[in-house]
Amino acid sequence: MNLSTLGEFGLIARLQQTLAQRPGVRCGIGDDAAILESLSAPIVTCDALVEQIHFRLDWTTLRDLGWKAMAVNISDIAAMGGTPVAAFVALALPQDFAVEQIEELYAGMEEAAAAFAFTIAGGDTTKSPGPMLLSITLIGNATQPVLRSGAQIGDILLVTRTLGDAAAALVALEKGLAVPDELLWRHHKPMPRLREMHTALTIENAVHAALDLSDGLAGDAAHIARASNVTLEIETAALPISASCRAIAATMQKNVFDWALAGGEDYELLLCVAPCKADAVRAAIENGGTPCTIIGRVISQGKVPVMLLDKGTHKPAPGGFAHF
Amino acid sequence: MNLSTLGEFGLIARLQQTLAQRPGVRCGIGDDAAILESLSAPIVTCDALVEQIHFRLDWTTLRDLGWKAMAVNISDIAAMGGTPVAAFVALALPQDFAVEQIEELYAGMEEAAAAFAFTIAGGDTTKSPGPMLLSITLIGNATQPVLRSGAQIGDILLVTRTLGDAAAALVALEKGLAVPDELLWRHHKPMPRLREMHTALTIENAVHAALDLSDGLAGDAAHIARASNVTLEIETAALPISASCRAIAATMQKNVFDWALAGGEDYELLLCVAPCKADAVRAAIENGGTPCTIIGRVISQGKVPVMLLDKGTHKPAPGGFAHF
Repeated sequence: MNLSTLGEFGLIARLQQTLAQRPGVRCGIGDDAAILESLSAPIVTCDALVEQIHFRLDWTTLRDLGWKAMAVNISDIAAMGGTPVAAFVALALPQDFAVEQIEELYAGMEEAAAAFAFTIAGGDTTKSPGPMLLSITLIGNATQPVLRSGAQIGDILLVTRTLGDAAAALVALEKGLAVPDELLWRHHKPMPRLREMHTALTIENAVHAALDLSDGLAGDAAHIARASNVTLEIETAALPISASCRAIAATMQKNVFDWALAGGEDYELLLCVAPCKADAVRAAIENGGTPCTIIGRVISQGKVPVMLLDKGTHKPAPGGFAHF
Repeated sequence: MNLSTLGEFGLIARLQQTLAQRPGVRCGIGDDAAILESLSAPIVTCDALVEQIHFRLDWTTLRDLGWKAMAVNISDIAAMGGTPVAAFVALALPQDFAVEQIEELYAGMEEAAAAFAFTIAGGDTTKSPGPMLLSITLIGNATQPVLRSGAQIGDILLVTRTLGDAAAALVALEKGLAVPDELLWRHHKPMPRLREMHTALTIENAVHAALDLSDGLAGDAAHIARASNVTLEIETAALPISASCRAIAATMQKNVFDWALAGGEDYELLLCVAPCKADAVRAAIENGGTPCTIIGRVISQGKVPVMLLDKGTHKPAPGGFAHF
């Protein structure tokens, strides 16, 4: 169905039927503003995805895109130690977009909302004379927010799962190579580590600082280093890299560590954990079914924010993904 | 300066210096998510503006555009009876956008944030391969939110200031006519009626329902009628229309009531007020310096949501602005 046949308010009415209102929201779509239940410690994140810049509609389904757009925001809330409550979706759509396509996109967003128990509570849908654009603001609650600025000298660095998979998938897609499903999935449908973060936080006073890896480990680690006035020392050989990622790197004659260090969109957690509690945090996360690896430690502030320890030799880390 | 010279994090650092952090925000730009102070009654609104659809950069300055993008969101918070706390800005920018232009845009947004005492606390800036897009999510607090669904039979309808000015300005701009400053200003730099709404709410149990007029009085009034299961009867002759608007209509041989009823972007308040308190509310708002006019009343639900009373004759109202 054509969007202009249905109209803005027809679209809203139709979408409303497919979106569940979950605890935390008093009044969702339909008034000048949504009304939420009281929030003791509101945290808010905002991420925009633009067609041709962040995604290509010939590489992803709209349903996966909807999931991913939500997932990157949930990942930010997770990294702060919070719980998502309500999402607001701004959508600018090319004229030829069909109502069924919008519903596919919303189905992916609602799938993420259901999986992580929050509500799509409002937004704005408008025409675009150019590419499609999707911007989500996600509001959560974090009674004890974990900041980037809390890292302490001696802290152990942990990362969840593996690094570089999404970057490997993207490079292979760009070259037109066949990409194994487990890598494609990492690129198209990242899984926010919300449960893992909450697990880590059950161990008291263990997690000093955290962030989610969106722009590549080296660049993102530097954010923690700068905010905490420390240096992060990362042991290259310790980086968790999947067999599929190594295989693609071998085929393409690429250095797999480049993807692990500077490839974007991993959406894994980087945690700075008190040394006496690192084993407990790691074990708790792994008991939940997610691999978790010690990749380095926090040292006193040196000349560079992130130092690589490669076969016993120190060298500065490369930068992360540049957005402009 | 070119955006790619400065980089994303350079831009963020530069903008941060120009944005004040006001009460209600614990931690703004710089971590995975912003942290707000506790909110007893959070309300959230979201509006997107797209180049060529909602604005043209040859008709508006970037500073005015920044103001307007904020103002339309503040207007929604005002209509709910709330107070704005924190704004989150998603921005997709054409490649050739200069850093100075982004700063102009942010100067306009910050001007609105300063005028209405809230904080620009985060967002996301990205490239656009097409038009510029600006989406703002504004979070406020409303201990006693005023909904569209509260209108009662017998309520008096009040509107602030005048209607149709922004529509008149837009039509005249499109025709290349000279537009008087007082109309241009209504189109480029709308003033949210936050103070007026708070004034109305000082009179206890007076305001039963409210909204801000963004798509035209007739269409917006229908939202209240449908949500409240009533009909809104509007007396055409009572509509407050400025002399400048009448003059433009005369020049262009247009019916000024079409603009007042179906022109968008007035951003005035439509209030449904208990009949015994209508005079007090009107007087209180006018004492604050903003004209306020009785334009009709709420009657029992009829065949149409909005009925016009024109020289003693009833007729159904025309629709509002259609977004698709």
